[in-house]
Amino acid sequence: MYEGAIQDLIDELGRLPGVGPKSAQRIAFHVLSADPADVKRLAQALQRVKELVRFCTRCFNVAEAELCRICRDPRRSDDVFCVVEEPKDVVAIERTGEFRGRYHVLGGAINPLEGIGPDSLRIRELMTRLAEGTCKELILATDPNTEGEATATYLALLVKPMGLNVTRLASGLPVGGDLEYADEITLGRAFEGRRAV
Amino acid sequence: MYEGAIQDLIDELGRLPGVGPKSAQRIAFHVLSADPADVKRLAQALQRVKELVRFCTRCFNVAEAELCRICRDPRRSDDVFCVVEEPKDVVAIERTGEFRGRYHVLGGAINPLEGIGPDSLRIRELMTRLAEGTCKELILATDPNTEGEATATYLALLVKPMGLNVTRLASGLPVGGDLEYADEITLGRAFEGRRAV
Repeated sequence: MYEGAIQDLIDELGRLPGVGPKSAQRIAFHVLSADPADVKRLAQALQRVKELVRFCTRCFNVAEAELCRICRDPRRSDDVFCVVEEPKDVVAIERTGEFRGRYHVLGGAINPLEGIGPDSLRIRELMTRLAEGTCKELILATDPNTEGEATATYLALLVKPMGLNVTRLASGLPVGGDLEYADEITLGRAFEGRRAV
Repeated sequence: MYEGAIQDLIDELGRLPGVGPKSAQRIAFHVLSADPADVKRLAQALQRVKELVRFCTRCFNVAEAELCRICRDPRRSDDVFCVVEEPKDVVAIERTGEFRGRYHVLGGAINPLEGIGPDSLRIRELMTRLAEGTCKELILATDPNTEGEATATYLALLVKPMGLNVTRLASGLPVGGDLEYADEITLGRAFEGRRAV
């Protein structure tokens, strides 16, 4: 409906995840009236991500060098590895400040319906790292949904014979939430995992 | 929380209207795994909008030349002008296929709280166009909200002495809606504007 360049931009923006036709139009008109320097910075940021960002060759977190910031950090412990699905999960866990070990990013979870089997994930690479022998505890921090649970169960079976301590993040009531609004499964897990006070 | 380039992109995306921190992160990771050609096209579309798109010198719609597509079209009538707030409104009206005249884009509506008075809008330019004498009917199609109504009232008072036919788009029930869900003001307007069948 628009002329050339603005319609092209609306079309390109509409291909991004979570951006519908109305948001794409709104962003395009924002760009039209924005400071040219701001628009240039955004365009450059898009291209620099493709040029500079790659995956850590050790843990498969996002990195701008051979190894990511966490793998390069000598103060972190090599005794504990935390297995997550995506780089975003690393950031979420880092925000808690509770974990000082290393990560391993699988790149997803086992999902037979979408054709993602163990071979599509970085499981072989995890086994190679574990074989180095520094790791004493493996924390399985995949998502608490069907695919994440399946992946954690698969990894636990695979790793147990190596004599490692394998743990899974606790399920229970979210802090700050209302008990009456918790779903049955979460509430059931909270009972199961109750602790002495 | 992320390293260099990806955090820069999340920050830049987060400045766009309607894009929160979570969406910015989601889009950034989409960009990271997207085809480099697609990302390049988006980056170029952003910059081309700033380079190519300007405002029509006659009606202030978006244009890639001196005049916009509608002002250049010789088949459109110079008898009727439709006054709208934004270029998006031109597109919305064009989609109906009901209007074959010319537009005039004000660039907003009168809003004293935000310091937007008549002088901030393209009202002087509208008066110059009306003084050319081709226009017989002026349709006031500003938004049906407080600011849009105030702008329409202001324009009507300003233009009436010129002997033009000044009209306003009908207010009433949206087609396909439920009467019971209409707000009181809309339903009141629908009664007021009832027509013989």
